Amino acid sequence: MFITLEGIEGSGKTTQLKHIVGFLQKKGHHCITTREPGGTRIGEKIRAILLDPESRAMDPMAELLLYMADRAQHLEELIRPCLSEGKTVLCDRYYDATVAYQGFARGLDIGLLNELHGLIFKDLKPDLTLLLDLSPEIGLQRALREIENGARNGSEIRFEKEKIAFHEKVRAGYLELARLEPARFRIIDAASTEDQVREEILKAVSVILSRNGR
Amino acid sequence: MFITLEGIEGSGKTTQLKHIVGFLQKKGHHCITTREPGGTRIGEKIRAILLDPESRAMDPMAELLLYMADRAQHLEELIRPCLSEGKTVLCDRYYDATVAYQGFARGLDIGLLNELHGLIFKDLKPDLTLLLDLSPEIGLQRALREIENGARNGSEIRFEKEKIAFHEKVRAGYLELARLEPARFRIIDAASTEDQVREEILKAVSVILSRNGR
Repeated sequence: MFITLEGIEGSGKTTQLKHIVGFLQKKGHHCITTREPGGTRIGEKIRAILLDPESRAMDPMAELLLYMADRAQHLEELIRPCLSEGKTVLCDRYYDATVAYQGFARGLDIGLLNELHGLIFKDLKPDLTLLLDLSPEIGLQRALREIENGARNGSEIRFEKEKIAFHEKVRAGYLELARLEPARFRIIDAASTEDQVREEILKAVSVILSRNGR
Repeated sequence: MFITLEGIEGSGKTTQLKHIVGFLQKKGHHCITTREPGGTRIGEKIRAILLDPESRAMDPMAELLLYMADRAQHLEELIRPCLSEGKTVLCDRYYDATVAYQGFARGLDIGLLNELHGLIFKDLKPDLTLLLDLSPEIGLQRALREIENGARNGSEIRFEKEKIAFHEKVRAGYLELARLEPARFRIIDAASTEDQVREEILKAVSVILSRNGR
């Protein structure tokens, strides 16, 4: 199984990922948690370029291609091998993030993004995508608090530095993607408490498990 | 004018680039010299990942996309603005290197490379491409000597560490590209002396200048 978590900065993906792993491991699943960008040794170096606030002058197409380079390495080195060994891969962000951020928010042509994704990655899709939906005001407040108390890496804040309007576009993009693929997406209200969010998420994961007959 | 230099490791591109600049500046051209990968602040960081011998486990598609990310930044930040200001851009490697290294030598589908290049970069072509042709045995010997005497960066040797057979494929790929586009390419025998190579190159550049009526 391939499960992805999506959402804007501060939507609580990292925290909830741990709850899903705990839940699945109790049921005997071998879980791998990973993230984009990052997830491999080479990917972590690409991540450092992408999230460095010093990379202000980055061209949107260069940004897109760096995310895709990270994904190519990630798919070949980690995701595809783990899936073919029967492991469950839980990934913090994947291709939907590319469409939401580089497409809807940066304005790159979404038809082009889909064409490139199809050509390069043969369109590998998650079995379930959990969209942690939240208003950017709350999300960015949370993210900044986490940077202050050291729970979030303060050198990786290029996207946190974008204006609220940018994050509104990302959010609207994610919601549009969820509307287009209701069978794959589950929208979770990430403004609720951690426990409520966890419960909603585990319900969605259980549905997939019973659908897959496990 | 957009002039590119291509060739395997140790073919003398860097040295000859200086001769071309000197020649063109005397004729009143405003020249910019640059290189791929690198050429911009962000590109230099991408270059460090690409040429780091520690990046052994790099997937060929990830490698391709990193070169393309570097090129996207390079085109937007430097090459296109300089060309539209009427400057002459001299670039140490460009898209032909992608086809020779990632296509002919690594084995990625060349049709796919051309499709991606067209989709992403609208196929911007150099006015002249100088191919410094050389046997890999001589090229690698030269490159290693330059690393030993400090003239070449010893931390950027991922490609120098490839086997001779790899460099033979790169060379054959370059020659095939030159055969397909004889109007754009000029093949230079890079095994000759520095002076002979310079003379051959400046002759080719002069032809382009008179063709362009400058």
